[in-house]
Amino acid sequence: MEKQALQLYVDAQFTSPYAMSVFVTLHEKGLEFDVHTVDLDANAQHTGEYAAKSLTQRVPTLVHNGFALSESSAITEYLDDVFPGITVYPKDVRDRARARQIQAWLRSALMPIRVERNTQVIFYGSRLAPLSDAAKEAAQQLFLVGESLLKEGADNLFGTWCIADLDLALMINRLVMHGDDVPEKLANFAHKQWQRPTVQLWMQQQRPALQA
Amino acid sequence: MEKQALQLYVDAQFTSPYAMSVFVTLHEKGLEFDVHTVDLDANAQHTGEYAAKSLTQRVPTLVHNGFALSESSAITEYLDDVFPGITVYPKDVRDRARARQIQAWLRSALMPIRVERNTQVIFYGSRLAPLSDAAKEAAQQLFLVGESLLKEGADNLFGTWCIADLDLALMINRLVMHGDDVPEKLANFAHKQWQRPTVQLWMQQQRPALQA
Ligand SMILES: [Ca+2]
Ligand SMILES: [Ca+2]
Ligand SMILES: [Ca+2]
Ligand SMILES: [Ca+2]
Repeated sequence: MEKQALQLYVDAQFTSPYAMSVFVTLHEKGLEFDVHTVDLDANAQHTGEYAAKSLTQRVPTLVHNGFALSESSAITEYLDDVFPGITVYPKDVRDRARARQIQAWLRSALMPIRVERNTQVIFYGSRLAPLSDAAKEAAQQLFLVGESLLKEGADNLFGTWCIADLDLALMINRLVMHGDDVPEKLANFAHKQWQRPTVQLWMQQQRPALQA
Repeated sequence: MEKQALQLYVDAQFTSPYAMSVFVTLHEKGLEFDVHTVDLDANAQHTGEYAAKSLTQRVPTLVHNGFALSESSAITEYLDDVFPGITVYPKDVRDRARARQIQAWLRSALMPIRVERNTQVIFYGSRLAPLSDAAKEAAQQLFLVGESLLKEGADNLFGTWCIADLDLALMINRLVMHGDDVPEKLANFAHKQWQRPTVQLWMQQQRPALQA
């Protein structure tokens, strides 16, 4: 394939699950791209060139031949639209709909888990206080959805890997990697997802020391 | 067109902007459907048949020939996939990506506006306290994005109406309809969007009195 002009902007700590989702998508699709880091601690997403590019002033942003796009699920959809060779969304219309449901839900619900088990748990090994009642309730909700969607022993949600598998596994791993109780089927699923070479590429990024 | 078996579940007050987004989409596409209400005040979304259908226990849920799907943006994408005659997403790949970015952003950001100007402002005429500093900051962010995307005097974001026009107009109208200051270009856009017949159909739904 001709070299494409793809630039990916991620947080400087490589802890954004949304940046990770796009990074993994680009690798799964076999696309060449350059990675640039944005220092969120210095509010760099709100200033100058990046703010103008990102529009919504969040990471990740992808720039493709001059077109700048933010919001990870919009980016991964765009990449499947523009580079349909290897897709990260299911081809079956109902599975694709379910994958989009999971992505939208993981980005707009379960807030107590996202706060009390932030992704420094996964990427820096941080250890935090026990879960609040609200976070325990959110975890029950997560387990209910996971148990309902995942077939026993299945590696993926829909038979073939898709980007919602990564996003769901990340949410589960916020708990698993902290040592919180997680149903075995879900813990096994998240563990297997984490073996994926494209996931390991993100895990192995050089991360700066955490600021106090 | 053959009658399709489409069932839409919305909140009993018709105040969910996400239920509205699907309702308007179904009407714009000329699809016949039945509306069912779910009493969120009684936590009906968490119990029995609806919880099982919705999976993520939120409204709206669409059931199409036995397939139950929640999360409004997943539903509107599904409807364009299955009924491609009249689409609610742009055909141009970059416009479609931008529409998805806006939808994802409106569903995961701007939380202070969503809380301090909840949609009872729009659907019940509720009047609430002045905006906090955090909400004013979110409003500035909203204005920046709107001013950047909307051409002067344009009725729509991308030349032809799409579902992101409604979603963006609703966010702006949380402020406009409360009497908060909004840049004229954005207020005019939101006002014009509200004249749309499919939007008026939702506005005109019979709403129960608000509970104390
Ligand atoms: Ca930093
Ligand atoms: Ca299938
Ligand atoms: Ca009620
Ligand atoms: Ca265009």
